[in-house]
Amino acid sequence: MSRSAMTKTLLLAMAAALLAPAAAAASAPTPTEILAAAPAEDWARIDPADLLVIDLTKGGRVVIALADAFAPVHLANIRLLARSGWFDGVSVVRVQDNYVVQWGVPNEAPKPLPPGIVKPAPAEYERPARGLAFTSLAYSDSFAPIVGYSGGFPVAQRGGQAWLAHCYGMVGVARDIAPDTGTGQELYTVIGQAPRALDRNIAVVGRIVAGMELLTALPRGTADLGFYAQPVQRTGIAHIRLASDLPIEQRPAIEWLRPESGGFKAWVHARANRQDAFYGRPAGAIDLCNALPPVRSIP
Amino acid sequence: MSRSAMTKTLLLAMAAALLAPAAAAASAPTPTEILAAAPAEDWARIDPADLLVIDLTKGGRVVIALADAFAPVHLANIRLLARSGWFDGVSVVRVQDNYVVQWGVPNEAPKPLPPGIVKPAPAEYERPARGLAFTSLAYSDSFAPIVGYSGGFPVAQRGGQAWLAHCYGMVGVARDIAPDTGTGQELYTVIGQAPRALDRNIAVVGRIVAGMELLTALPRGTADLGFYAQPVQRTGIAHIRLASDLPIEQRPAIEWLRPESGGFKAWVHARANRQDAFYGRPAGAIDLCNALPPVRSIP
Repeated sequence: MSRSAMTKTLLLAMAAALLAPAAAAASAPTPTEILAAAPAEDWARIDPADLLVIDLTKGGRVVIALADAFAPVHLANIRLLARSGWFDGVSVVRVQDNYVVQWGVPNEAPKPLPPGIVKPAPAEYERPARGLAFTSLAYSDSFAPIVGYSGGFPVAQRGGQAWLAHCYGMVGVARDIAPDTGTGQELYTVIGQAPRALDRNIAVVGRIVAGMELLTALPRGTADLGFYAQPVQRTGIAHIRLASDLPIEQRPAIEWLRPESGGFKAWVHARANRQDAFYGRPAGAIDLCNALPPVRSIP
Repeated sequence: MSRSAMTKTLLLAMAAALLAPAAAAASAPTPTEILAAAPAEDWARIDPADLLVIDLTKGGRVVIALADAFAPVHLANIRLLARSGWFDGVSVVRVQDNYVVQWGVPNEAPKPLPPGIVKPAPAEYERPARGLAFTSLAYSDSFAPIVGYSGGFPVAQRGGQAWLAHCYGMVGVARDIAPDTGTGQELYTVIGQAPRALDRNIAVVGRIVAGMELLTALPRGTADLGFYAQPVQRTGIAHIRLASDLPIEQRPAIEWLRPESGGFKAWVHARANRQDAFYGRPAGAIDLCNALPPVRSIP
């Protein structure tokens, strides 16, 4: 649906609402239609320098958007590991249902880190809210008094501090007990109900923006914490590279809806207050992790 | 850990807290330890008449606990379909990432329903809260003023009405546009961040209590809404039966933690306020769908 068609639909719906609320409700645009009608300027292309590309040995590509504003030292480590080729040959070692998929070097085969890795990195678990681009979500959250989005990332705030929320598809740095903060050599992504208790306890470094289904559909591990009991069950990772280090024709091109845009606001409102035909009872609410800024590939 | 060992640990932790808060925090029992120490009377065995058993053609079993207190007509339909063998040979037709796995008869091969199916069933999307066994969760929810648990099920309430919440692993009845309410011949389960906007718009009939990982690890469908593009991609279902209709030695034996028990309260509190060594910053909160009453198989 084009933008002008969309506007016409909205106007017709508003007019109809005055005459016949039920009929108007049945013809209200769906969130998907609102998304399709959002103008090009509502979308922001993600810089290839902020995209981490994971190519699986068996084929298939996962792409992570990196959140530099939150964990710069951990991200410098991750970039160094990617550029040095250190990640080549790591594997998915853990898939715990309704929790996380984790990848790195198996415990039985440690691999020396390249020079320049900061260890321990500072505990980059939160940062000052001041100076952060932030758009508030106009609905309440169970975990924090203020929630919203910074770029395509979900953010929570309290007392002037801001942190990335552990929503589905967010990527964090696995670590041992404090004072360890993790080096970035082992990462995980959330594959279930947001485990927000991890917020502010771990460095969150990004969000998966393509290929999530390649990780979520992996068999669950049967050892403790969802680790694979047998090495043969692990999914191999051929390479992890920054998109900006790939030849131009191999770089993924991905954009996400700006949280400050009119399109995003309309989309959130429609998802929180479903008026399209399937829904009889709009929720009147939406959760931070149910309204992550939509992502799409650029042809 | 035995119950007496657990009590000793708690007492030691309480004593230590007076002397050295940090050391006490490091030795606090984990939610897993609390669960292991819960006495037998904190657990309730699920009646085999309330367990729906799905046996996959390729092997593997999924078990659903049925929520009779919420959707009795839909559940009478589902029981009739199970008892008549109607479900034998259906398949998983849809896997949409971060949303649902759905099973039933493919659209291209409709199958007549047995006599006795109520169609349309009443819209059993909520019920009076009065008369419902209910234990409140002492933390706030983004979607409803009152949330908690009834047996092993997550429940939300507003204005004297109660409904089952669309948490990970909850099972609902697929339907078309109203006035259709679904017959029970096609069911789905939630495999991502709780899509609570579906609450009160669909008949929710149960919760998966075993074998969830057999569904969540299925390849995502590539057609619209995650339907499989090719019939060969579907996962076959050999049989769906009530556990009470199986020979005794084939029945699953499953129990869940009573939400009104001391063990459940301690487990929720520990999960919301993590004091074990990994956590430096307890959330002080927990989400309804992060605290579903734990389930375990009885040997």
